[in-house]
Amino acid sequence: MTQKTALTPSTHTAPPAAFSHGLRKGNVLQVAGQVGFLPAEEGRPPTPAGPTLREQTLQTLANVKAVLEEGGASWDDVMMLRVYLTDVDHFAEMNEIWNAYFAEHLTQPPACRTTVYVGLPPGLLIEIDALAVLD
Amino acid sequence: MTQKTALTPSTHTAPPAAFSHGLRKGNVLQVAGQVGFLPAEEGRPPTPAGPTLREQTLQTLANVKAVLEEGGASWDDVMMLRVYLTDVDHFAEMNEIWNAYFAEHLTQPPACRTTVYVGLPPGLLIEIDALAVLD
Amino acid sequence: MTQKTALTPSTHTAPPAAFSHGLRKGNVLQVAGQVGFLPAEEGRPPTPAGPTLREQTLQTLANVKAVLEEGGASWDDVMMLRVYLTDVDHFAEMNEIWNAYFAEHLTQPPACRTTVYVGLPPGLLIEIDALAVLD
Repeated sequence: MTQKTALTPSTHTAPPAAFSHGLRKGNVLQVAGQVGFLPAEEGRPPTPAGPTLREQTLQTLANVKAVLEEGGASWDDVMMLRVYLTDVDHFAEMNEIWNAYFAEHLTQPPACRTTVYVGLPPGLLIEIDALAVLD
Repeated sequence: MTQKTALTPSTHTAPPAAFSHGLRKGNVLQVAGQVGFLPAEEGRPPTPAGPTLREQTLQTLANVKAVLEEGGASWDDVMMLRVYLTDVDHFAEMNEIWNAYFAEHLTQPPACRTTVYVGLPPGLLIEIDALAVLD
Repeated sequence: MTQKTALTPSTHTAPPAAFSHGLRKGNVLQVAGQVGFLPAEEGRPPTPAGPTLREQTLQTLANVKAVLEEGGASWDDVMMLRVYLTDVDHFAEMNEIWNAYFAEHLTQPPACRTTVYVGLPPGLLIEIDALAVLD
């Protein structure tokens, strides 16, 4: 039997429902949709890193990375990133932030990506989830 | 060669196009987007369980579960659930229904989840798909 | 160590950011969100196959297929296709095109599918990504 392990970085706020921030089973690691919430602080409700796309994108990427690392993985193991934006006009800026970020975080080919424009809860501009396959 | 097996619960209406409700190949089990249609009845077109979020969410979860079981899996094997809602205002109620449901359907850590708000065909309030990795 | 290989068909335009059109690692093959861009031509910006749903759907499917084949896979290996449309009224026509296409491209059960309605960049009517598991 292969164990299914929940991945819960200490920086993360509790999920708002019965789901895991991350799971690893065998060589598959799944990261739930992450948003730009700051590291959890006792007594403070989930708080976005700021109102801008830049702040939220960088925090969201940091939150995905924390789950990956909790499961013994890195960006290099990621096969797919799904990016949910709320506004088509954010695409170019998100790509700039994305390219600068990954220029410093990869030693292997970058993940695949799908970007679509959806509704998100008020105040949130971006959500990202990830599927990784480890060696 | 690893066999790819279509999973078609007897309760399910035929897909409206050339796709499978579920597939298993090796230890990977994929469930196509399920909605809140009642079990198929000869001569009746696909019919939602009801107009409410509660009725549709519970029926959608039952439909996902039926595909999992057809492939020899259970909720415990699910790594990722993607939830598509049509209205941000449904989030809190969906979470209540979700938490009550999974309190009785899990012995291992819950699946990861991403929830986004999209358009769905008229009358449908929720769609869910699943990726499972078996032991 | 299992190698992670980027899949970049010669027909494809460069991704607009640091992501891969396709990746293969072990027996898992991921295809990034593909749209209906014509095969790349030096000096021409990415150009949709045409304004119609039919043109874009067939080109998008051709683009997904090119990535699959670059990784040694075929439609038969695909477990999941995610279809993003912009208009619920396109569902019936997309299914017609889909059924005719896959009637000639499959020898095994068809992939699972989830179809949702989202925003896409101006001029694009459909986006599709794929997850395949090889033998």
